Amino acid sequence: MKRLAFNSLIALITTFGFTQVSAQPDLATQPIPKNVILIIGDGMDDHQITIARNYLKGAAGRLTLDNMAQRGVAQVLTVAENDPKKFVYVADSANSATAIATGQLTSRGRIATTAGDDNDLTSIIELASAANIKTGLVSNSSVTDATMAAFYAHINMRFCQSPASIEKTSDFGQMTIDCPQDLQANGGLGSIAEQLVASNLDLALGGGIKYFRPKVENQSMSVIELAEQLGFEVLTSTKQLQSAPLDKKWLGLFAPSDMPARLRGQDGRSAEEPQPDITHRALSSKGEVRMPEPMICEPNPKSKGLPHLKLMTDRALAHLSQDNRSGFFLMVESALIDKEAHDRRACGSIGGVEQLDEALDSALAFAQKNPNTLIIVTADHSQSAQIVPENSLFKGVGVPVYTPGKLVRLRTPENSLMAINYATNNFIKEEHTGANVPVFSNDAASLPSMLTQADLFHVIKNYLNIPNN
Amino acid sequence: MKRLAFNSLIALITTFGFTQVSAQPDLATQPIPKNVILIIGDGMDDHQITIARNYLKGAAGRLTLDNMAQRGVAQVLTVAENDPKKFVYVADSANSATAIATGQLTSRGRIATTAGDDNDLTSIIELASAANIKTGLVSNSSVTDATMAAFYAHINMRFCQSPASIEKTSDFGQMTIDCPQDLQANGGLGSIAEQLVASNLDLALGGGIKYFRPKVENQSMSVIELAEQLGFEVLTSTKQLQSAPLDKKWLGLFAPSDMPARLRGQDGRSAEEPQPDITHRALSSKGEVRMPEPMICEPNPKSKGLPHLKLMTDRALAHLSQDNRSGFFLMVESALIDKEAHDRRACGSIGGVEQLDEALDSALAFAQKNPNTLIIVTADHSQSAQIVPENSLFKGVGVPVYTPGKLVRLRTPENSLMAINYATNNFIKEEHTGANVPVFSNDAASLPSMLTQADLFHVIKNYLNIPNN
Repeated sequence: MKRLAFNSLIALITTFGFTQVSAQPDLATQPIPKNVILIIGDGMDDHQITIARNYLKGAAGRLTLDNMAQRGVAQVLTVAENDPKKFVYVADSANSATAIATGQLTSRGRIATTAGDDNDLTSIIELASAANIKTGLVSNSSVTDATMAAFYAHINMRFCQSPASIEKTSDFGQMTIDCPQDLQANGGLGSIAEQLVASNLDLALGGGIKYFRPKVENQSMSVIELAEQLGFEVLTSTKQLQSAPLDKKWLGLFAPSDMPARLRGQDGRSAEEPQPDITHRALSSKGEVRMPEPMICEPNPKSKGLPHLKLMTDRALAHLSQDNRSGFFLMVESALIDKEAHDRRACGSIGGVEQLDEALDSALAFAQKNPNTLIIVTADHSQSAQIVPENSLFKGVGVPVYTPGKLVRLRTPENSLMAINYATNNFIKEEHTGANVPVFSNDAASLPSMLTQADLFHVIKNYLNIPNN
Repeated sequence: MKRLAFNSLIALITTFGFTQVSAQPDLATQPIPKNVILIIGDGMDDHQITIARNYLKGAAGRLTLDNMAQRGVAQVLTVAENDPKKFVYVADSANSATAIATGQLTSRGRIATTAGDDNDLTSIIELASAANIKTGLVSNSSVTDATMAAFYAHINMRFCQSPASIEKTSDFGQMTIDCPQDLQANGGLGSIAEQLVASNLDLALGGGIKYFRPKVENQSMSVIELAEQLGFEVLTSTKQLQSAPLDKKWLGLFAPSDMPARLRGQDGRSAEEPQPDITHRALSSKGEVRMPEPMICEPNPKSKGLPHLKLMTDRALAHLSQDNRSGFFLMVESALIDKEAHDRRACGSIGGVEQLDEALDSALAFAQKNPNTLIIVTADHSQSAQIVPENSLFKGVGVPVYTPGKLVRLRTPENSLMAINYATNNFIKEEHTGANVPVFSNDAASLPSMLTQADLFHVIKNYLNIPNN
């Protein structure tokens, strides 16, 4: 919560005159505005991409993603909270989004604050906004969830999403979470929801209305009411989104928390454990094992009527590009690739990649008409799912060979069987994993074939011509 | 074993006059020779690369690989033996190497033969050799192992490596393997070893001497003796390799079968199962679990004195480029990334990536002096290993959270802990997995950002100016 970095931002604004007041008179002489659309597939590693491609387009098919001009990788770097010079090898969405949003490394769980000494880190949203560049964030998670939050908030723990949870909350029954130093009463910026409505964002669209219903710290109005008072049009339905006025700031809250996945396993099934028979339980070289029944993916009835990522992206692009002569930065997150993988729901993740691919279609169509638009697609960390052989490489050996984890067997539209394994832990939710992640771009000249997530901050900042601080 | 495709090759040679005799008089008027060095990391997916980078260079470090000009991915496509129009979603090294070597898809286990109808497929080695382009193959597996074999042999089953195993062999105790239709007596080309010595290869270096000791089918001499009779200098030691005459063909056989890995886990340890205590076994929400002790990687004493991949690559480059005015094709495989991952030996795989990276250094140094050299680095399929959190994302919930599979906890030289999970099956060997694989090149213009493994055949063929057949 310490405000050192934010103070630097203020100094920067003063030095370079990047206030809206001083920048506007020069607009007519500025070059054609440049835009950046950053699309983050949460947990979208090469396995998730291949799983989705196999199911949606066939093994030899191609996603829109696959046709991007440039493809490379990003190193995902995370440091230890108690020793920020030491790397840890698996990220969460909070620290990886912080790297992308601020160009700085931090520890898991932190939102745009430094590991150990808890200083606020200036984000690309804050720099862009100060430079009169419009900014927007879109996700199908809660708008207060980690990836999105790292672009506008500064807090020591991602789970302090609302005024109701910043003092004391818990997750999975026992894990206590609080952020006392971030209370406004203690000189902090308040919960993530409160920080969102206090931000200069032109729009934020996603789920998470439940985080905006509690009362603002020490006030009688809810965070929603404060948002309206601060000029946000609060949108809660697809219809409202479609007709929302382009001259107001938007806060879209289309679900209580994360928006439901588009696809689910047949009859709502997720991954299941192979079931060895009694003989095999007694003697590992004998007996047989019953594998989970194959399934297809089906539409998730819970997502019916809710705006898809593509619609939110289309509306965001319309809003941000309206009468805009100074460019914009838009971040679009397809969040459910990761969340559904945590829950071992292969179909949910596939629908998440599909939603990302559709949003990318919109971004590419926009860039076609607006050539000064850099599109970057990446992931924040890798995830647990692996395609394993439907018939083991060792099937012929005469003993049952099967995963110790949980398995989804998908019957693909091209009529083959794809087996997807989840085995990073024995808990109700799978772990993230630590591989470098893919990066795609529509502009090969703007991105090297390998970079760090923190480098992405500089790529975006340079493309938008935001001066160095 | 059917010879249709090979007959097409003969027709091609006749049509284009690509025999050594007719091509040689034109050498002086040919353009500067072009060379291709194809480096295959067996099982080298993004997880294996990240594991090796973290250990060898640090999380923020870079392998030589990471500095390549172009980075993209290859789709790994495999078809079903009993229905070659149907995709299966996980490859083995035989079918994926066949795709790279011949441009055609096949089923698992097959070496340059078609799925279902068993026709021989013409390989880049055969085309190059017919076009007077020198050819060489290097690996630290047996020279008869699947990846290398797909470049020179045609057989229905990868395990038919020697005359002794082509009629009847077994693996893992019970899996029966034979290739009766490939016996020379039945009109076939014989075992993989016999096909190697009958090939036009200028050199083949690796392990696997045990496959060359049996007698040639229906003859009294061994395959080694036949190799010598057919003009190969048989090399069995580092010293012999270092001083081998450049004007003879080389058959390097430096180990009985696969060459031992360079690195191994401390005291020879591999992945181990977490050990829950009695309380946790009785009640999953209670008790504790003992994780495997952290370890470092250490030199594998078994590899002492054997040639590393870099030396074999250096010598192969010296041989192939000697007085060469028509170019060469060299394939270098780092085989142990995969083999060690099957055995859950993270250090072995790390040493495998290190060996590949060193061979790449040699290739890049050669290309620096010989600019018409295309270097491609890729993998044949993804593998089982995943970096998982050393401290679970859910550590705070108060119940033991750990993998149902087996774990290596590596203490990295940068003094952090990297946890590597193996959990694709419960068998003595892990499975391959099905993600698309990385492709690197020193020449961005020669490779798109995404292609299939079969496309690589055409990239190589086009670069070497081998006409279409």
